[in-house]
Amino acid sequence: MPLQVGILGANGYGGAGLVSRLLAHPETHLAALASRQYLGQPVEAAWPQFAGLIDATFVDADDAVAACDVLFTATPHGATAPLVHAARSAGKRVVDLSADFRLDARTYATWYGEHPHPQWLDEAIYGLPELHRAELAGATVVASPGCNATAVILALAPLAAAGLLGSTPSATIVAGASGAGRGLDLGLHYAELDENARPYKVAGTHRHTGEIEVVLGRVLAQGKRTATHGQRADVRIAFNPVLVPMARGVLATALARPEGALDGSTLLERYRDFYADDPFVHVQGDLPQTKAVASSDRALVSVRYDERTGTVVAFCALDNLGKGASGQAVQAFNLVHGFPEALGLRLEGVWP
Amino acid sequence: MPLQVGILGANGYGGAGLVSRLLAHPETHLAALASRQYLGQPVEAAWPQFAGLIDATFVDADDAVAACDVLFTATPHGATAPLVHAARSAGKRVVDLSADFRLDARTYATWYGEHPHPQWLDEAIYGLPELHRAELAGATVVASPGCNATAVILALAPLAAAGLLGSTPSATIVAGASGAGRGLDLGLHYAELDENARPYKVAGTHRHTGEIEVVLGRVLAQGKRTATHGQRADVRIAFNPVLVPMARGVLATALARPEGALDGSTLLERYRDFYADDPFVHVQGDLPQTKAVASSDRALVSVRYDERTGTVVAFCALDNLGKGASGQAVQAFNLVHGFPEALGLRLEGVWP
Amino acid sequence: MPLQVGILGANGYGGAGLVSRLLAHPETHLAALASRQYLGQPVEAAWPQFAGLIDATFVDADDAVAACDVLFTATPHGATAPLVHAARSAGKRVVDLSADFRLDARTYATWYGEHPHPQWLDEAIYGLPELHRAELAGATVVASPGCNATAVILALAPLAAAGLLGSTPSATIVAGASGAGRGLDLGLHYAELDENARPYKVAGTHRHTGEIEVVLGRVLAQGKRTATHGQRADVRIAFNPVLVPMARGVLATALARPEGALDGSTLLERYRDFYADDPFVHVQGDLPQTKAVASSDRALVSVRYDERTGTVVAFCALDNLGKGASGQAVQAFNLVHGFPEALGLRLEGVWP
Amino acid sequence: MPLQVGILGANGYGGAGLVSRLLAHPETHLAALASRQYLGQPVEAAWPQFAGLIDATFVDADDAVAACDVLFTATPHGATAPLVHAARSAGKRVVDLSADFRLDARTYATWYGEHPHPQWLDEAIYGLPELHRAELAGATVVASPGCNATAVILALAPLAAAGLLGSTPSATIVAGASGAGRGLDLGLHYAELDENARPYKVAGTHRHTGEIEVVLGRVLAQGKRTATHGQRADVRIAFNPVLVPMARGVLATALARPEGALDGSTLLERYRDFYADDPFVHVQGDLPQTKAVASSDRALVSVRYDERTGTVVAFCALDNLGKGASGQAVQAFNLVHGFPEALGLRLEGVWP
Repeated sequence: MPLQVGILGANGYGGAGLVSRLLAHPETHLAALASRQYLGQPVEAAWPQFAGLIDATFVDADDAVAACDVLFTATPHGATAPLVHAARSAGKRVVDLSADFRLDARTYATWYGEHPHPQWLDEAIYGLPELHRAELAGATVVASPGCNATAVILALAPLAAAGLLGSTPSATIVAGASGAGRGLDLGLHYAELDENARPYKVAGTHRHTGEIEVVLGRVLAQGKRTATHGQRADVRIAFNPVLVPMARGVLATALARPEGALDGSTLLERYRDFYADDPFVHVQGDLPQTKAVASSDRALVSVRYDERTGTVVAFCALDNLGKGASGQAVQAFNLVHGFPEALGLRLEGVWP
Repeated sequence: MPLQVGILGANGYGGAGLVSRLLAHPETHLAALASRQYLGQPVEAAWPQFAGLIDATFVDADDAVAACDVLFTATPHGATAPLVHAARSAGKRVVDLSADFRLDARTYATWYGEHPHPQWLDEAIYGLPELHRAELAGATVVASPGCNATAVILALAPLAAAGLLGSTPSATIVAGASGAGRGLDLGLHYAELDENARPYKVAGTHRHTGEIEVVLGRVLAQGKRTATHGQRADVRIAFNPVLVPMARGVLATALARPEGALDGSTLLERYRDFYADDPFVHVQGDLPQTKAVASSDRALVSVRYDERTGTVVAFCALDNLGKGASGQAVQAFNLVHGFPEALGLRLEGVWP
Repeated sequence: MPLQVGILGANGYGGAGLVSRLLAHPETHLAALASRQYLGQPVEAAWPQFAGLIDATFVDADDAVAACDVLFTATPHGATAPLVHAARSAGKRVVDLSADFRLDARTYATWYGEHPHPQWLDEAIYGLPELHRAELAGATVVASPGCNATAVILALAPLAAAGLLGSTPSATIVAGASGAGRGLDLGLHYAELDENARPYKVAGTHRHTGEIEVVLGRVLAQGKRTATHGQRADVRIAFNPVLVPMARGVLATALARPEGALDGSTLLERYRDFYADDPFVHVQGDLPQTKAVASSDRALVSVRYDERTGTVVAFCALDNLGKGASGQAVQAFNLVHGFPEALGLRLEGVWP
Repeated sequence: MPLQVGILGANGYGGAGLVSRLLAHPETHLAALASRQYLGQPVEAAWPQFAGLIDATFVDADDAVAACDVLFTATPHGATAPLVHAARSAGKRVVDLSADFRLDARTYATWYGEHPHPQWLDEAIYGLPELHRAELAGATVVASPGCNATAVILALAPLAAAGLLGSTPSATIVAGASGAGRGLDLGLHYAELDENARPYKVAGTHRHTGEIEVVLGRVLAQGKRTATHGQRADVRIAFNPVLVPMARGVLATALARPEGALDGSTLLERYRDFYADDPFVHVQGDLPQTKAVASSDRALVSVRYDERTGTVVAFCALDNLGKGASGQAVQAFNLVHGFPEALGLRLEGVWP
């Protein structure tokens, strides 16, 4: 008998990705899709791609919680914590795609303000399977990682584990428009973003900065098999994002300056070893490009060594709505329930 | 035991779509991928999206023919006929995505020049399942339709079947860059096509014109269940394509002026009835848009009646590489072999 | 002494184009830029491209009217008529980019509802210089044409003048996002429009349909040198627009079926003759493409004859914000004041 | 009497930008446009935007040299040095947009191989007016800077002049397709680059790295008013470019870690002072975006201080074909001849 799953925020991009993956998932049944904005309307009012394929209307959050065994929350940070609180109070498992359960209370306060429901933070397991696969089994709250954070963490984790982060790594990412969500925003108007590259939330103001530092800090202290609530070292990163004219995609270019000279091919082997058992991270010699993972749930990682400046340059390409959101959430969901890790997921990108 | 399939032209866009679909197909095994350009190189040299997923190298056409039970040819028109000849001579079934087996010898000569291997034309079944589902069972040569032709035919076939095409229908399509193939062409350079809409092969010079006329002529004479080699009426269409800055997608806007006044909602019902049993064509009241079928194998169709001018305006949106190429080819392949029609295929589009 | 000009709606795309052209215009001084939304803010709050170049803040409409000799209105239809009324009552000349003064009262009522200030309609001269150059001299109200209408009219006017429109011409246009304005609209979100072609307001529902019919009807009755308030014949056109992923640009593909057979090269010569004295319309043998007129004030026109179907296929490419809006408005403004027609304007497109 | 100017490589993007600017320039006459590929063909065969505007055919390099007083070379590096040699031997002034005269012979050898005509290197003045305005007057060879190099240099020069570069600055740029030129390249095919972000020539392999280091090294040693052949300090930069789906535009995100703590607003003032007399560089508090300089000849610069990591984050947006190529070349040309610096140039970007 399939698990009954509900999705909150099913009218957003994260929600659509969940619908698509869970619809094809052999162990789940889409019990309820919730949307405040489209409440009572058919699913195809929000999503033309499902016209004629899903015969359902959007419900409210309460009905979705009541109807499901497992709840996916793809709602904005801040608004999500109360919804998770309600779901957990009703005994439902939660996979949360928002930022609300990714950080400890003190770090959360630094970046987002005081946490409204800290009692569930202890249950939350950070949903990056490559670092937390073991702890995800049976988790009651999965805190699914941010898209930008995932890209930077995957690029730098092998360095962190090897003590090669240097003193202050940096990462510049380029990101597509869907990372900013489906809201109305002049900066996302086609005529404003087309032919435009635009930095935003730079110089330590992007909230994913805290998430990246916390996770890399844990890897630095604990290594690859990481415990969400275990110890962590202090890491500071200079993180700067640039919005570019794409619908999807994140490409991270991450720099670190470890002590001493390194060798490029040894470094690449180290990366290969680090992710050897991870089907959703592919380490390659070629530089990764976002199109190769478009609408896929896999990340591509590579690394080079710039001998002239003693800089490690690591890259990660992913689809912010795949490995960066819905795909990763379903990957963690599979691990929670002991399903095969790739169930319902897609490894290859759509090219062209 | 799965069918052994081979793909010629596996380094082109049609080829990539076949690889993707047949890789996921439970009844097939990818026995051989052929490419002249990438001969001997690993698949990921041509296709970064398959890096780490397919451990194979490109072979030549002869090896591919030898290795397979069924051959998919995704090679240019003209060059394909000899390859099909070789494959049929070796007793292999063929699903041909080129234009080489879509037309009778005389019509082929008009648009493409003399046919080099006309002896196989009689076996060829036109691979549009919505019109030819019955005859596809057991076919030895499937002539898979052109992408633009599919869009225009699906938009106008219900009118043709009802005798409502009027004297000279017209169709203007907008099409993305992948429809022109993966070749090097200044007009497809990103900096040349970005922010550009450009008509091409207009005023009766596009070769899909002949294909559209032949197929609509058969529907006019025979109705929906159409025999490839049955009778056909004479149809002329004014067909004009416009290239626009998209990687994928075809949107057909087709106009017909039947005698007498019609009613919009009756017309829409007629379209719904026509495609009622066709899972890969969805008739809807909303105007179709290409993103709703991006990387899917479905077409969306709608129709309006412009009372002021007595014009039927019919629309079809499809992915030129999905329902317009690889998806449709696999759909036909499924029917040839008695597999479920949707095996290995995707109904919903990727949005965004 | 330069003319003092004011711009209403200076925070919209039409407004920005006016600012850019009038700033460079040797006979004008930008006396006032009005914007309700950005009232009191510096110009660069709305327009990053003018940062450091224009030291001014947005004012309200009344102040702009008071400060100027000539008022350009680039505000929405419906909202503009009262503003024109106020400006004319104060004795100011007006160049109106909205739809409010393009149609006679009865036709306006059909497409937009009852006209609120019909007393100024008799003064309004339709601002398409190629047809109305003579009457524009000294005009007090210029009704600047719509972008889509301009493209279709320029494509078909030579046929209309020659009595070759046939019974019901049709036009399908592809248009970029800026044509829909700078408002917040989910359909214009980058992630929704990217890789998307989407028909809208089809089958006789787009309001430019009426404008096209009125203008072609006048050409049919009067020929090239057309009087706005002179007689006109009845023309009906099947007009269908498709939104495509571009910031700028309109490409019209217009079809007509005149009686009897024609000759393609004779037709092209006829077009060349028709526009021989028009510096902002270039007739060419090559098919026009929108990039060739990007951010220019010129339109490119070509025509082909499809002998198989007896169809004339005429094309026009223009920048909806150049020849389709601000450029054309300044071109008419120049003619009103007896300035050289091209003053402040740009003939060549930006490529790439 | 206008100067007679010739352009080599007039069929490339740099060439088109020169044609456009010099056509509008009141002190020049376009005496000869040379193109090997389009030799003997009309200009509009290469450039549809000039159809009907330029009545000329492409000539060969010798004829262009003979016909001009000043030669602009917009040909590939390596191929250009002999052309400059010929022009200088004939006594013509040269503005060279290639890389061939930007570096001293030893540095050139490191990045490009042995220089074929080093005898002209001593005459070459680096054509970045903001640093070399004084020396450009009367120069016989202008070595116009690279587009990426210009962006990074403008972002970091104020730090270099103040001794705030730290030990190893870094810069990640995002760049549009035209930066790679107008050649045929699968990676630039619209369907391959659309929706794709792709790093290239990373980790110290991009040749602009050397140019950036040399120029910043001179500023470090000499300050703002810099002599091309004066002394320079040693600078190493970690430079990594990412290709994104735009036709035009470069956005540089440059990081430096100077000793000690800084203050963001003081830093911004320092930048404002540095460029106070430079009309083509605008320093602003808002983050720069490439659309604001699309097809303009100006660069936008801003700077932030990331206190958490002690990192200066500096940004520069420019149009690679404007301030990054043709615009900057004409700006230098104006200075060479004592014309007003902005003659024929454009300050504002095209938005949208």
